[in-house]
Amino acid sequence: MDNLGLLFVSELIGTAMLVLLGCGVVANVALAKTKGFNGGFLMVTFGWGFAVFAGVIVAYASGAHINPAVTLGLVANGATEFGNAGLGLTVPVDFLSVIAYIGAQLVGAIIGAVLCWLAYKQHFDAEPEPAPKLGTFSTGPGIRNYAWNLITEIIGTFVLVFVVIGFGGGRQGEGGLAALGALPVALLVVGIGVSLGGPTGYAINPARDLGPRIAHAFLPIKGKGSSDWAYSWVPVVGPIIGGLLAGWAAIPLLPIEF
Amino acid sequence: MDNLGLLFVSELIGTAMLVLLGCGVVANVALAKTKGFNGGFLMVTFGWGFAVFAGVIVAYASGAHINPAVTLGLVANGATEFGNAGLGLTVPVDFLSVIAYIGAQLVGAIIGAVLCWLAYKQHFDAEPEPAPKLGTFSTGPGIRNYAWNLITEIIGTFVLVFVVIGFGGGRQGEGGLAALGALPVALLVVGIGVSLGGPTGYAINPARDLGPRIAHAFLPIKGKGSSDWAYSWVPVVGPIIGGLLAGWAAIPLLPIEF
Amino acid sequence: MDNLGLLFVSELIGTAMLVLLGCGVVANVALAKTKGFNGGFLMVTFGWGFAVFAGVIVAYASGAHINPAVTLGLVANGATEFGNAGLGLTVPVDFLSVIAYIGAQLVGAIIGAVLCWLAYKQHFDAEPEPAPKLGTFSTGPGIRNYAWNLITEIIGTFVLVFVVIGFGGGRQGEGGLAALGALPVALLVVGIGVSLGGPTGYAINPARDLGPRIAHAFLPIKGKGSSDWAYSWVPVVGPIIGGLLAGWAAIPLLPIEF
Amino acid sequence: MDNLGLLFVSELIGTAMLVLLGCGVVANVALAKTKGFNGGFLMVTFGWGFAVFAGVIVAYASGAHINPAVTLGLVANGATEFGNAGLGLTVPVDFLSVIAYIGAQLVGAIIGAVLCWLAYKQHFDAEPEPAPKLGTFSTGPGIRNYAWNLITEIIGTFVLVFVVIGFGGGRQGEGGLAALGALPVALLVVGIGVSLGGPTGYAINPARDLGPRIAHAFLPIKGKGSSDWAYSWVPVVGPIIGGLLAGWAAIPLLPIEF
Repeated sequence: MDNLGLLFVSELIGTAMLVLLGCGVVANVALAKTKGFNGGFLMVTFGWGFAVFAGVIVAYASGAHINPAVTLGLVANGATEFGNAGLGLTVPVDFLSVIAYIGAQLVGAIIGAVLCWLAYKQHFDAEPEPAPKLGTFSTGPGIRNYAWNLITEIIGTFVLVFVVIGFGGGRQGEGGLAALGALPVALLVVGIGVSLGGPTGYAINPARDLGPRIAHAFLPIKGKGSSDWAYSWVPVVGPIIGGLLAGWAAIPLLPIEF
Repeated sequence: MDNLGLLFVSELIGTAMLVLLGCGVVANVALAKTKGFNGGFLMVTFGWGFAVFAGVIVAYASGAHINPAVTLGLVANGATEFGNAGLGLTVPVDFLSVIAYIGAQLVGAIIGAVLCWLAYKQHFDAEPEPAPKLGTFSTGPGIRNYAWNLITEIIGTFVLVFVVIGFGGGRQGEGGLAALGALPVALLVVGIGVSLGGPTGYAINPARDLGPRIAHAFLPIKGKGSSDWAYSWVPVVGPIIGGLLAGWAAIPLLPIEF
Repeated sequence: MDNLGLLFVSELIGTAMLVLLGCGVVANVALAKTKGFNGGFLMVTFGWGFAVFAGVIVAYASGAHINPAVTLGLVANGATEFGNAGLGLTVPVDFLSVIAYIGAQLVGAIIGAVLCWLAYKQHFDAEPEPAPKLGTFSTGPGIRNYAWNLITEIIGTFVLVFVVIGFGGGRQGEGGLAALGALPVALLVVGIGVSLGGPTGYAINPARDLGPRIAHAFLPIKGKGSSDWAYSWVPVVGPIIGGLLAGWAAIPLLPIEF
Repeated sequence: MDNLGLLFVSELIGTAMLVLLGCGVVANVALAKTKGFNGGFLMVTFGWGFAVFAGVIVAYASGAHINPAVTLGLVANGATEFGNAGLGLTVPVDFLSVIAYIGAQLVGAIIGAVLCWLAYKQHFDAEPEPAPKLGTFSTGPGIRNYAWNLITEIIGTFVLVFVVIGFGGGRQGEGGLAALGALPVALLVVGIGVSLGGPTGYAINPARDLGPRIAHAFLPIKGKGSSDWAYSWVPVVGPIIGGLLAGWAAIPLLPIEF
């Protein structure tokens, strides 16, 4: 397999790991008859944080973007290579590699969501309400207002991508979450969750939200209700804007060698 | 003592530490009149995570498998040595060493469960219900369905063993949890717990479940009720399948040197 | 831009990050219709801890004081340079640099509070009570008694600054939170929060409290009520006293090279 | 000051830090009108864990025993020096140095408890019940039975000291909690708390329990009730036995160089 193929697989597996564990913690808290039912928002945020931790470890070889907002933020930042220079696994940043990364993330997110559904199959069946089912897969706002929901997602994603790109090594191959390290990224994501996740449930990652929503739409989930496509563009567009802004904002930080 | 004897003791003590602390946190949350009564699922998952942390530190000399699913996953991955190459403590992987590792884990788990019972002796006596007593020792499903429970345990164990073997240094002696490091493994186990522990309580380790169940069966626990042997094969077979699958799945990762 | 200008920007961005995330977690717990509503004090303390984590990473170039109590504690400790010697970014400690650091922290805190308000705009609007609105921005005491509230803030800030300056490398350029490392500081701040945050909500940072209070006063927050200026001096003066005392107390530790 | 004097001060300050923060989190959870009232057992255990974290950092120069059970465990393990060899700050292990270490720990614990009382002064005054007041200072059993309470304390302390001495570098000067590192010790203490703290509230440190109990006895705490001296020997004798047993049990681990 050529480098781009290897990086595609790495991003795919890493994002699948992220979404399996991330959607899993919501299932545990939200669905009927689980051990962690009503476990609280702190548990949800730690769950997503450790999901990122595992995903970053698994996708180390590709720089662990596992998030289109990171990939696009690196583009905006002026990255010339994706991947892991230390492993000799890099590809030039061009239309093909950007599409490959984002495509791998989206496919991986769909696979992760399917695995989550299998792990919690009986609890999806036993849950009478449709809302926690969709909530396991995708985010939704506390108060629906597309403009303000968008602003919240932009701010949350900006924080993630600005810290990762600005302080984790921007233009080098390895740019991405892996450059900052799995543990710091995990703690940062827990922090964004508890602090900025209140209004919209912090997608801060278009693949994390759209992939599971697609899975929700096609899986034969018992009594599943709507996939809420009306809202679906917010957690895609918001993170993309936030990631691009963060990549641009981090450009002046590049001359400083840490 | 020869190397295999030292590794046996290391695995035994490490698994005893794991199970003492792990079962302990369930006792604290589930039994009457404890300080942590009704402390919540997040506390349970942190408790098991830090139990793994202590167990991995203690069993460092043997690679800290402390879990037959890890041992068998390494076999499936093609490991040729168990133990800790850095300490010069290794044995070849063969029938005898596999049996020694798994035997040590099972004996250690039984001892850990007995120590937990002693630490919480009065609270076992004061607890009127049998369910939290068995729940302290062994896992049980939220919704009983052996096939789906098995799938959940396979997925959870796959995540654990795939990350550990694929990204913690597979074929080297030291293969096992110690290769990834005690803190990353602990956080990974907290993550698996909060995210995939909802349906079955995440055994993800045959010794962790079977050892305490044996202890539950033979200990003179006041008003203890059934040891639920009908379910007992699920948290043994599921983790074994998950570990083997993860070991095989991680084979393509071996050529990549991290 | 000269060094002082760069350090000003670094402190400003770092403190904005700190306050955006820190005030954010309170908004999430306190305001109506959020995902984390009533999430508990542990979540608040983890939120502030990870806010410090992100702020210290972001303000690394300036030593990450992000707190006037740290800046003044370093002065009391006899620091001769502020900034990051490893990056060649230092300024002498004099009236101008102290004012620049504290000014940057205050401006950054105001900006962070405004961003938090934007992220939670609809939830501020939906919240009927004024108390949780002010509580999102600034601290207030459980039992109002200025003298005792002051003592609590002095003790809490003393712990922070004493550990950071005494054990994170005092007189070197880089003095400040960055010298101890982002993760240790974050855990220390979680510890101070859970342990000493009970009486006053642990400002332990004059900029963190005064900046958002100023924002609360001038922002057009719906139904916002008083900014409680009568209390406002306590979380400014207490941390300043605590920081100065800690800087002096840490002087005897300087000859010991760690 | 000679070495023993410096080590005395280091242990004293470190143990004061430990007890100030540790007792503080109990005050926050237990006393009336605090921000963290009823914050849960997980918060208490994290609070004590981060208290240990801060105490170990502060007492680094003396090896950070900050616990007579660690000091005596090192003696049982055959340590020949206390202190920090890396700093050139060591003293021979003899009657005088053992007494100096334990004396410093006890005095430090008393000072830490007094500071905690000052930080929470108004909340002690506002609290009508005497039980949470004593509970802030010292441990008490869920079910009073001296023999079984003793066993629980022995097991919990054994885990702490066995891991620290057996796997943190036993006979070297620096022996003690500092040898394992502040973060691992903190996580280990959180783990012991959530897992083995249920029956007795896990003193696992004679100074941590006796020092604050002495402070409780002599401080003019409003409506304080009994200091429960009848129980006071359990959290002193149990940890001493556990520490000695752990020191002995760790002797065979010494030849293995990690």
